[in-house]
Amino acid sequence: MAEKSYTVAILGATGAVGTRLITQLEHSTIPVKQVKLLASSRSAGKQLSFNGRPVTVEEATPASFQGVDLVLASAGGAVSKALLPAAVAAGAVCVDNTSYWRMNDHVPLVVPEVNAAALAEHHGIIANPNCSTIQMVVALAPIRQQYGLKQVIVSTYQAASGAGQSALNELYAEAKQAVNGEEMTANILPVKGAAHHYPLAFNLLPQIDVFHDDGYTHEEWKMIHETKKILVGDKNSPDPKVTATCVRVPVPISHGESVYIETEQQPSPADLRATLTAAPGVVVQDDPAQQLYPQSLTATGKRDTFVGRIRADAENPGSYNLWIVSDNLLKGAAWNTVQIAEELVKQNLVHVAAGDAALFSDQD
Amino acid sequence: MAEKSYTVAILGATGAVGTRLITQLEHSTIPVKQVKLLASSRSAGKQLSFNGRPVTVEEATPASFQGVDLVLASAGGAVSKALLPAAVAAGAVCVDNTSYWRMNDHVPLVVPEVNAAALAEHHGIIANPNCSTIQMVVALAPIRQQYGLKQVIVSTYQAASGAGQSALNELYAEAKQAVNGEEMTANILPVKGAAHHYPLAFNLLPQIDVFHDDGYTHEEWKMIHETKKILVGDKNSPDPKVTATCVRVPVPISHGESVYIETEQQPSPADLRATLTAAPGVVVQDDPAQQLYPQSLTATGKRDTFVGRIRADAENPGSYNLWIVSDNLLKGAAWNTVQIAEELVKQNLVHVAAGDAALFSDQD
Repeated sequence: MAEKSYTVAILGATGAVGTRLITQLEHSTIPVKQVKLLASSRSAGKQLSFNGRPVTVEEATPASFQGVDLVLASAGGAVSKALLPAAVAAGAVCVDNTSYWRMNDHVPLVVPEVNAAALAEHHGIIANPNCSTIQMVVALAPIRQQYGLKQVIVSTYQAASGAGQSALNELYAEAKQAVNGEEMTANILPVKGAAHHYPLAFNLLPQIDVFHDDGYTHEEWKMIHETKKILVGDKNSPDPKVTATCVRVPVPISHGESVYIETEQQPSPADLRATLTAAPGVVVQDDPAQQLYPQSLTATGKRDTFVGRIRADAENPGSYNLWIVSDNLLKGAAWNTVQIAEELVKQNLVHVAAGDAALFSDQD
Repeated sequence: MAEKSYTVAILGATGAVGTRLITQLEHSTIPVKQVKLLASSRSAGKQLSFNGRPVTVEEATPASFQGVDLVLASAGGAVSKALLPAAVAAGAVCVDNTSYWRMNDHVPLVVPEVNAAALAEHHGIIANPNCSTIQMVVALAPIRQQYGLKQVIVSTYQAASGAGQSALNELYAEAKQAVNGEEMTANILPVKGAAHHYPLAFNLLPQIDVFHDDGYTHEEWKMIHETKKILVGDKNSPDPKVTATCVRVPVPISHGESVYIETEQQPSPADLRATLTAAPGVVVQDDPAQQLYPQSLTATGKRDTFVGRIRADAENPGSYNLWIVSDNLLKGAAWNTVQIAEELVKQNLVHVAAGDAALFSDQD
């Protein structure tokens, strides 16, 4: 019997994440029969390639998903809201990199190293968590499993590309203006369409996404609530408390995170290093004598999450500081999405049950 | 009777902080009779100016302090170690911006808004704290005084200029290389003279200063121990626990700090805003609806410390997240140094007692 192969649609194929979805899919274990590259009408007709063969970008419409087995979506929340129910109705399983479906009770929120088992409960849509959440839970889940996890206090150092290709372009344009002695012009960050825009180059912007009434940004809200949704799957330990401060920094790719944790047991830093060294998807870079620690430049282009600067808080036994860096476009987005799809294929879960599509209709 | 006026020597006058010591002194309330600009032999003969009049830089030697009333020092720890005892012996009161004397029991470590009273106990040398410590304690001292302070967990976002003018030049040079598509060359950061150098432009470097055996950097050690030395003066509250993670970010000037605090009482964020609004040296910038929050670009060139993003941790009553930004070369260095000197003049403390110089001799 021939190995089953899959028709895969990439929704939002021309963006910073979309182009990486193509390359991550090229390097995946998924047997691809055919690839469909979908985007807005503006990008339709553009020529891209998959495994060296040219593919023409098509406009994404509700009719695009006939005959599609898997959808990898990264075209923005509004597009995922509008189109993924049609994809599920057409029988396609969707792995969605946008935030729109993440907190829906019928949608597993999955980081394969942490909660791949949650995929078995899918109803046609699986959500890829927020980039800053993914790299944090990859490192914290093994610690939680072994030592329990009571509290997480995270401060992020997030790269421009987390806000898309246009924000990345703006960072470089501003940097060029600044080194040429020109005034910097900002039109995108901190939030597309917001009333005020501020330069990111040579600056720090403590706003990512819009504000909630309690003063937290939506990015901070995501880190708190997505982390709880992902880690709740592990019943060995009560849910950790989580708080977050998210800051955009003038770095193109790869987020940094300064994470303070309180565990139930009191492992030594060496114990934590051993646990993380054995953890899937994690690379420990923690040798002060060699000045070895995670950096954005060295993490970029890699699928792993890098952890270093592991230190005990001498005044609070059972509390630790960690420094976590990962490529926000790969593990934080495209690679985690393709990795979920690989897992769906491996677990033979690329099918939609009768009635599943109805769960996602009449959304508002 | 004529107002007393002072002969002021600036030691390290040509550096990033030294040039700002000159301008901060020009704009201070100190009646300056004469200014002496001192630096290494390499810079001797250079022409600078004070209040529009040219001043020739002289080589700093132990004999430089005859007739000097006040020394403002920022020429590196080794220079302060070597020369300040001679300055005190010559009868000059020294305000030292380097780390060398900070933890000495005979040396007050002063942030005027917080512990100006400690100046009365000086013996000829007063230390200016580390830049990242100063801006944090300016914001935390009034909170501690009003609500008690049990714990501080800080993650810093520190500007290149904290490592001096050469590091600042290197950041711009690397940024220029990067936007021109060239490879970046690093020779200074993270630590001058260390075995490895890494680019800071478009990168994150979680190393500031050298490593201690427990894995903390010396910068983190400074934030922990200097904060305790400064705040210990306030007996209303037990000493807070402090831990820190210090990261260098590709910003020229003005450090950011994400600070998580636990207080003894449970003020509302509005209470904290009111306390900080009334606090000397602090400007609250905290209006999410107007996208108003502290940024590096807007803080640079100002003497104040800016605080925003003030939020309660919903899961831990009495715990809060703050975002603090200040110009590390002004409040973090030159302005705090000149402000200490102003306070010495105001309190009539510009004199050295017999026997004081002996406290600082035979140091190792």
